[in-house]
Amino acid sequence: METGTLYSVILAGGSGTRLWPLSRRGNPKFLHPLTGSAKSLLQATASRLAPLSGPAQSYVVTGVGHAAAVARQLPDLPDGNLLIEPSPRDSCAAIGLAAALIARTDPNAIMGSFPSDHVVLDEATFVAAIRDAVQGASSGALMTVGITPTHPATGYGYLRCGARVAGVGPVRPVAEFKEKPSLEVARAYVESGDYLWNAGMFVWRVDAFLAELERQQPTLRAGLDEIAEAWGTPDQDRVLGTVWPTLTKISVDYGVMERAADVGLVATVPGDFGWTDIGDFHAVGEVLAGMESNAVDDHGNIVLAEPKQAPVLLRDTVRSVVVAQSGRLIATLGLQDSIVVDTPDALLVCRRDRAQDIKSLVDELQQLAETRFL
Amino acid sequence: METGTLYSVILAGGSGTRLWPLSRRGNPKFLHPLTGSAKSLLQATASRLAPLSGPAQSYVVTGVGHAAAVARQLPDLPDGNLLIEPSPRDSCAAIGLAAALIARTDPNAIMGSFPSDHVVLDEATFVAAIRDAVQGASSGALMTVGITPTHPATGYGYLRCGARVAGVGPVRPVAEFKEKPSLEVARAYVESGDYLWNAGMFVWRVDAFLAELERQQPTLRAGLDEIAEAWGTPDQDRVLGTVWPTLTKISVDYGVMERAADVGLVATVPGDFGWTDIGDFHAVGEVLAGMESNAVDDHGNIVLAEPKQAPVLLRDTVRSVVVAQSGRLIATLGLQDSIVVDTPDALLVCRRDRAQDIKSLVDELQQLAETRFL
Repeated sequence: METGTLYSVILAGGSGTRLWPLSRRGNPKFLHPLTGSAKSLLQATASRLAPLSGPAQSYVVTGVGHAAAVARQLPDLPDGNLLIEPSPRDSCAAIGLAAALIARTDPNAIMGSFPSDHVVLDEATFVAAIRDAVQGASSGALMTVGITPTHPATGYGYLRCGARVAGVGPVRPVAEFKEKPSLEVARAYVESGDYLWNAGMFVWRVDAFLAELERQQPTLRAGLDEIAEAWGTPDQDRVLGTVWPTLTKISVDYGVMERAADVGLVATVPGDFGWTDIGDFHAVGEVLAGMESNAVDDHGNIVLAEPKQAPVLLRDTVRSVVVAQSGRLIATLGLQDSIVVDTPDALLVCRRDRAQDIKSLVDELQQLAETRFL
Repeated sequence: METGTLYSVILAGGSGTRLWPLSRRGNPKFLHPLTGSAKSLLQATASRLAPLSGPAQSYVVTGVGHAAAVARQLPDLPDGNLLIEPSPRDSCAAIGLAAALIARTDPNAIMGSFPSDHVVLDEATFVAAIRDAVQGASSGALMTVGITPTHPATGYGYLRCGARVAGVGPVRPVAEFKEKPSLEVARAYVESGDYLWNAGMFVWRVDAFLAELERQQPTLRAGLDEIAEAWGTPDQDRVLGTVWPTLTKISVDYGVMERAADVGLVATVPGDFGWTDIGDFHAVGEVLAGMESNAVDDHGNIVLAEPKQAPVLLRDTVRSVVVAQSGRLIATLGLQDSIVVDTPDALLVCRRDRAQDIKSLVDELQQLAETRFL
């Protein structure tokens, strides 16, 4: 397979509520460098896809609120490949739009859809895995990427896999999509060895995907076709503005993949390339601690600081995560397993084992109508 | 005793290192409201002395760096009663200057010297105690105020007291000044019942004090006399500027009181008026928790916020002290016994039981030459 034969679509959406106050509606998770490097998660995603897709085959789907930031962060992305949703209609519409537009000029194209806010530690293994997925997709399968679970996570969806088919490489059929399970169920999944985490990455022939979309979501498919027909014509904006708000709002998992798995159309490749969805600050700390990043000190503290940051003094502080975004001096004394997120207009101090509950703080701010902090 | 017969001298010095980053060299502890009220500690000190001394009998000694702030915080203080030290020469020179100036016009005046950064909960009892001290001072004694110890504190000096003399009210002779003791020694002091904390407040006849200063610190006394003679003349600033830097730099405790006690000149009155020197953020929390202030919530948290503060959300947070000075939103999640001090240019997060060690952080900043934060 040559560079350029995969169309890569990055979904730059979602606000990363559990990473508040770093991640905001107006400045979401994917625009931030969270891995101690200079690259944002979006830039890192684009960079790891570069060996698979040239600029002309690279697309980003994002909302109107983030289009400018995405355009600036990805200067190599062709203007026309930045697909801007007039309003959020969930992932099925976003992915479908990209598929429909790619299919116009390359009906047998293979496309991959990738979240913009995940971390991959081993890029070479990632590229190899996606090449395996492309191989699997060439026969018409809707390919997923399955992560071998390291613990009974309740925050991920699971893929129940069939046996590896001899002689066809690493591809395994997916018998069933399972939603985020209870802890007990997650434990059983992990013990069985038959379940993988769904990494939220998909690879397929656009014709295969659009056919399945036609079968399961015919009105959504029809709407996307109408938009695709008008694309590049003087009618583009009018049709997009009229049709887009009517599209079925559903995730691609619910809208297509679940029932595609039921009819044997879905398969998976192993994605053991050091993956995490880096969903909260505890996870940020875990990922960086595993990376031997220079953001990690001898006491297991992680400091993610802006370039112009004043000193961060961690005295008798261990296993803590400090995100320094305001430039102010930060001093801690006697902290353990804590999270400190310092931004220009909001400060969060949190125990690491409560990192998931930051979402509830954001809900509280919403209730208090303190929307300027969201 | 009538209002106006006591000359009150407030010493507005010291930077309150253990209250960093709230307290700074340029904006020290005494200029801040730390008790959940609108008054700074300095203003509260002046206010509680008002029943004892009219404006004409009220003095403040401060450094050049804080004179403007003091003048603005105390609009009733006569211009000429704000005594500005050209450079810091410790408390013996500061108190001596006030004594020498008061003695020029009222040689038998009784003066009291008071720190500007302590907290007194019961002002009526305070006034009564100082009136007792004035009574004791009228006979020539150098009066102190002794606080009944509530715990074996190692951060205070102690007064070893003789028995209460029958028929002369609450005044007790002080046999000895004891410096800050070790914990073991402090425990023995507290158990014996013979020791009181030295509150750093002094009441005496200016002639009695100046005579003892003459005996123990003759060159310092001579320098002060030279300054006092020139006071109010065209030579005032020249003489102050020339002589002040040569004055012996010593605290009044070391310079006068220790050896005055040795010769039986020192006595004390009990100061059980809810006193604390509010030396660190843990103490701030303790004081406010005891005040039934509206800065205290149902979970024992203390929030000291500026008027324009954004919300402070304390979720599953207990017994913590939050000082909100930057106006930013502050959210905490799962904290216990913690201190969060949020100022416009520096943030501190600290365990309450490490509050004393904040001084060492400030030392570290000094070593790092990060003087802009000091």
